[in-house]
Amino acid sequence: MRRALVHRIATAAPDDVSGLEEAIAAGRIDPAGIVAILGKTEGNGCVNDFTRAFAVSALTACLAKHLPGEAVAGIAMVMSGGTEGALSPHILVLECRDVADEASEGPALAIGVAHTGDLAPEHLGRMGQVWLVAEGVAKAMHRAGIEDPADVHFVQIKCPLLTAERIAAAEARGEATATRDTLKSMGFSRGASALGVALALGEIEAHAMNDAAIGTDVALSSGRASASAGVELANHEIVVLGMSKAWCGPLAIDHAVMADGIDVEPVREALTRLGFAAAGQLSPDERQRLVALLAKAESGSTGRLRGARHTMLDDSDIAATRHARAFTGGALAGLTGLTELFVSGGAEHQGPDGGGPVAAIAARAKGVS
Amino acid sequence: MRRALVHRIATAAPDDVSGLEEAIAAGRIDPAGIVAILGKTEGNGCVNDFTRAFAVSALTACLAKHLPGEAVAGIAMVMSGGTEGALSPHILVLECRDVADEASEGPALAIGVAHTGDLAPEHLGRMGQVWLVAEGVAKAMHRAGIEDPADVHFVQIKCPLLTAERIAAAEARGEATATRDTLKSMGFSRGASALGVALALGEIEAHAMNDAAIGTDVALSSGRASASAGVELANHEIVVLGMSKAWCGPLAIDHAVMADGIDVEPVREALTRLGFAAAGQLSPDERQRLVALLAKAESGSTGRLRGARHTMLDDSDIAATRHARAFTGGALAGLTGLTELFVSGGAEHQGPDGGGPVAAIAARAKGVS
Amino acid sequence: MRRALVHRIATAAPDDVSGLEEAIAAGRIDPAGIVAILGKTEGNGCVNDFTRAFAVSALTACLAKHLPGEAVAGIAMVMSGGTEGALSPHILVLECRDVADEASEGPALAIGVAHTGDLAPEHLGRMGQVWLVAEGVAKAMHRAGIEDPADVHFVQIKCPLLTAERIAAAEARGEATATRDTLKSMGFSRGASALGVALALGEIEAHAMNDAAIGTDVALSSGRASASAGVELANHEIVVLGMSKAWCGPLAIDHAVMADGIDVEPVREALTRLGFAAAGQLSPDERQRLVALLAKAESGSTGRLRGARHTMLDDSDIAATRHARAFTGGALAGLTGLTELFVSGGAEHQGPDGGGPVAAIAARAKGVS
Amino acid sequence: MRRALVHRIATAAPDDVSGLEEAIAAGRIDPAGIVAILGKTEGNGCVNDFTRAFAVSALTACLAKHLPGEAVAGIAMVMSGGTEGALSPHILVLECRDVADEASEGPALAIGVAHTGDLAPEHLGRMGQVWLVAEGVAKAMHRAGIEDPADVHFVQIKCPLLTAERIAAAEARGEATATRDTLKSMGFSRGASALGVALALGEIEAHAMNDAAIGTDVALSSGRASASAGVELANHEIVVLGMSKAWCGPLAIDHAVMADGIDVEPVREALTRLGFAAAGQLSPDERQRLVALLAKAESGSTGRLRGARHTMLDDSDIAATRHARAFTGGALAGLTGLTELFVSGGAEHQGPDGGGPVAAIAARAKGVS
Repeated sequence: MRRALVHRIATAAPDDVSGLEEAIAAGRIDPAGIVAILGKTEGNGCVNDFTRAFAVSALTACLAKHLPGEAVAGIAMVMSGGTEGALSPHILVLECRDVADEASEGPALAIGVAHTGDLAPEHLGRMGQVWLVAEGVAKAMHRAGIEDPADVHFVQIKCPLLTAERIAAAEARGEATATRDTLKSMGFSRGASALGVALALGEIEAHAMNDAAIGTDVALSSGRASASAGVELANHEIVVLGMSKAWCGPLAIDHAVMADGIDVEPVREALTRLGFAAAGQLSPDERQRLVALLAKAESGSTGRLRGARHTMLDDSDIAATRHARAFTGGALAGLTGLTELFVSGGAEHQGPDGGGPVAAIAARAKGVS
Repeated sequence: MRRALVHRIATAAPDDVSGLEEAIAAGRIDPAGIVAILGKTEGNGCVNDFTRAFAVSALTACLAKHLPGEAVAGIAMVMSGGTEGALSPHILVLECRDVADEASEGPALAIGVAHTGDLAPEHLGRMGQVWLVAEGVAKAMHRAGIEDPADVHFVQIKCPLLTAERIAAAEARGEATATRDTLKSMGFSRGASALGVALALGEIEAHAMNDAAIGTDVALSSGRASASAGVELANHEIVVLGMSKAWCGPLAIDHAVMADGIDVEPVREALTRLGFAAAGQLSPDERQRLVALLAKAESGSTGRLRGARHTMLDDSDIAATRHARAFTGGALAGLTGLTELFVSGGAEHQGPDGGGPVAAIAARAKGVS
Repeated sequence: MRRALVHRIATAAPDDVSGLEEAIAAGRIDPAGIVAILGKTEGNGCVNDFTRAFAVSALTACLAKHLPGEAVAGIAMVMSGGTEGALSPHILVLECRDVADEASEGPALAIGVAHTGDLAPEHLGRMGQVWLVAEGVAKAMHRAGIEDPADVHFVQIKCPLLTAERIAAAEARGEATATRDTLKSMGFSRGASALGVALALGEIEAHAMNDAAIGTDVALSSGRASASAGVELANHEIVVLGMSKAWCGPLAIDHAVMADGIDVEPVREALTRLGFAAAGQLSPDERQRLVALLAKAESGSTGRLRGARHTMLDDSDIAATRHARAFTGGALAGLTGLTELFVSGGAEHQGPDGGGPVAAIAARAKGVS
Repeated sequence: MRRALVHRIATAAPDDVSGLEEAIAAGRIDPAGIVAILGKTEGNGCVNDFTRAFAVSALTACLAKHLPGEAVAGIAMVMSGGTEGALSPHILVLECRDVADEASEGPALAIGVAHTGDLAPEHLGRMGQVWLVAEGVAKAMHRAGIEDPADVHFVQIKCPLLTAERIAAAEARGEATATRDTLKSMGFSRGASALGVALALGEIEAHAMNDAAIGTDVALSSGRASASAGVELANHEIVVLGMSKAWCGPLAIDHAVMADGIDVEPVREALTRLGFAAAGQLSPDERQRLVALLAKAESGSTGRLRGARHTMLDDSDIAATRHARAFTGGALAGLTGLTELFVSGGAEHQGPDGGGPVAAIAARAKGVS
């Protein structure tokens, strides 16, 4: 059987790999088992955020000391920029081990990873991207040993964005991109990626989608997709997280969908299903068992939250994604007592307008199956 | 007897007084009874935030249609800039009415307002400011009819800041200001104001304070002070909020001190004392009774929250106060379900390092004394 | 005959009208003669820049002490936000006087002002706006007594933008706006306004324009339009500046078109035509005669300037318009030695892609006709 | 004899080393001769600018393919963050070659490099840093073969800054740092470094300096120092540029001191001394000969430029250093027609208050000795 391990490691800078090095040296992490690294880095999370690429560069160099080049290249590295408020920069190292754990009854956390081919800039934010991602999700599910889409609780995707250079390259070939606004391209890419997840998981059928709906029809959404765009890749890195009887160990995952940026009660219910006490903030003891919380945050398209106006969309000093990460990050930190949260901004087609999917990975309490 | 009313009115822009006008026209607000207006405006909340002054200018012009000039000048107008995340711009209009409400047993919410004289720029952030504010707080308590400092639950102060012009003016007189950094001067002014509150309420004795401690000794703090600095005034406007048997009506106030930016449980307890259900987010019904929540938010001086590093202090793109308002605002919105929260940034000497005081004003539920 | 006066007055804050008050009190300005006030205010110059409205509010209140309400309403107030770098906040008060100056041979600076009706949000950035502006420019030319479009050297327009609220209002009526991005709407509005000028001045014919070209076809441009968008108005305020024999006095205007953001040589030539020495920065003496410099700055659409990459379009921390104002402002300050420059950002269809029109108003040197 | 080469190479991202790779592959650059790389990267140039470290990391990895580790470590890499406005990201590769060029009469551009030991955080911004830097400058002069300080035209220094972590480390040892404000620490570090240059070059004598004067006494300044602070190093990297008869080749360097941020005339004079035509912007042909322009920009301490107020010091959205780089960058681009300029922000003790030193490196025109 396979067993998934999730190591949450604080980082002191985008290129800080000392914690990873130490865990490898101490034998807590077997580099050969690493299938994915998700990370929050401290850049602006927008177009000119080079902390993501810097982290990937440092992680790659670190792992290259322990693994052959092709093995490192096979590891999905999904860096999400933006640790607004007191969100804390960290990485989540996802490791798979083959174990002979007959005693475990399962199911347990299962992980599958896939990389797509490069996306042409003119396909970004269009159905071409949706199909490319859907194919990748199916492949990652297969690798995770998950057959029923209902067992998938979260799909984390790193997707590309447009830069002035890439737009020019497409235009030089006579192709028009979905947008010429580089910041906006991040939203298009995240949205199309999320619809790819929805397609693969059967949440939405293909005929209900088209180019024009991408980025505009907020009724279309996946309840389990989380996409993060970055300048440092041209393809997609896809990490499927779910529950499978083919996996064992103490880790379990569940998910919730926030209806808006402060809708923490569904998350509380997911935590309850994972065995946490329901009332109030998680106690320090309980907090130990919460291995990871992954969430999407966005400002929504209406300029309002529960009827009250907010100013995220009209703020020309701070990008709306930064506002949203800080605010929803605060709400989730208030719920969990934890600030090492993987809160990623821009939830286009990821959960309802203004809300987003959230996944929690926890070690089951002793005595809890 | 006197009765306090608190009207929470959404604003569509810093100079939007249409809601106030409408409430006056409909008779819901008697302009002659207004003693203070607290407001969240949508600027950056830092030095060059002119939305505060713009709001004061619009409110003043609006009220001047209903009141003589000196009456308008007597109204404390405490605008706090910064509605990061989904915090929603709004004003809180504090009104006092003389009523013959024999039936009420009290105590109830009591309000007192005072203005200090102008502060010399070179006194800002020093003991001269502390004493000036303490005197003002005592005066406001007296006006509120509160004798025991223990009955004071919140003191909201609007204090001045230094600008390049004001620093130059002081230096032209041969005086050195506490800092030449205009953004930093906001913290000095808030800190000295908070110590003035602590002095007036007996939280800290005078001999325990001195110039050098202001802005540096985080062990000195008031659990009930909230100060907000702005370029639009040269003196202090002080609003004391507490409970008094001399006042009647359904409103009550209680307070809590957050130990850090996500420490929502003490606030939940204060809400419980005000008759709200304890578990989870306030329901839509309960939310109706929560008239106002006033809180301070700050990044703290250590660069860490519960041991985890945050990046607020090292971010040169977004001021730490903006990060803190967004994050703690999110935590409090997650608790209350409300985004029209008066979350004010910069909690120097206001609550413990990284935390801050919070006050809740609620209408008592029927059947709750 | 009419005589134009241009008073350049420094401001200490967006609502600082003390300089204007003083000039009126001293008799240097006759309030009844004011036809327009152009101003640079110190906000971000983008969507949530309330310094423009604050300035207009303060100027309006100031002038209302001297003029009847309808007269104040007739004065065009074109506030342009953004004094990046060392650009200095100031206002330009444009005054017209009837004089019996037979001696003057003319031509001299001529000014005409017009206001259009309100623009429906769904017309913003489309041909509806182009025609509305063209009509207004024609009206303003007529008022300036300028018949030949070749005598028009600059047309300054204040135009509206879209906010989340305005977009929602249009959508509630079943209308779609040209964009749902509020920051982007400023560019659409400036661009359509500029094409309105080009249409009125005969620079481009109507059949060469259409909705799709607005904001995209950089080949279409006016060499004399300058548009600035603001949240504080729903219509257009248009100020035409040119030379006319019907006007007298020492002031003259000339203009240039910068091909890119550092193309200062055409401006130097325009200054030479106005009688300034050609080589190097203007001397302090000469600088006295330079009454006003009005310019547009923009980042351009290519991400390059003279072949070298810049990062303005990919910067998610600072809006490209702010970068462009600072940089071109620096270039023009280096040329003139002056920082009280009316450099306005966003030059869509105003000059060539990446460049923009510039106008200089100068007092003729003695002995220069 | 030695010959200095300066290769200016555009970069497409902080970690773009393709241009350097290509120049090495083509034989234009001999990696063994590289003594220093100066670069402008596109981060915010402030505390949390990781583009500098990312560039150093990429350059180091690139050169490690061609050189032994200790040789790479000996190369000074001075990355300066911030390409505001249309400033263009690029690197300047400084190479030294031994040549048998008897024909050359010299003098020519000479380069010397030195690294200091690590600076204790509590010495930053104090005399300890001044002496450490002075010693390093003397060493670098010696290596450049320059004996007379008058032959030194520019000293570029990369110096460390304080982070929350470094401050805590010092305080854990019972030491107090000069400031607890991380952004402010950059100014202290640059200022003390500049005074180290002034000390080494004999511009100011040691007894005229002390801890209290660093960062405050604007009368103390070097006319040839340029310091840039970064989080990526704990010591200083020092590059001395001057003229020496021990060097040959076509390159020459000269310098100027700008009295304020738009004082371009002294720079024009330096260019004239280097053989450029005096009037107007450099022509495209002449521009070819201008190999590098290195300048410091700062907002100054008075809030005014030539008497006119600017808003750089009061802007809480954009750091003053970013404003200053954009504005002075624009002025110098207007002068030279070039945007690949090494304009570095924060000129504490580097040139007069509000101004700064500028150096130009040019290939002598044919026929010009």
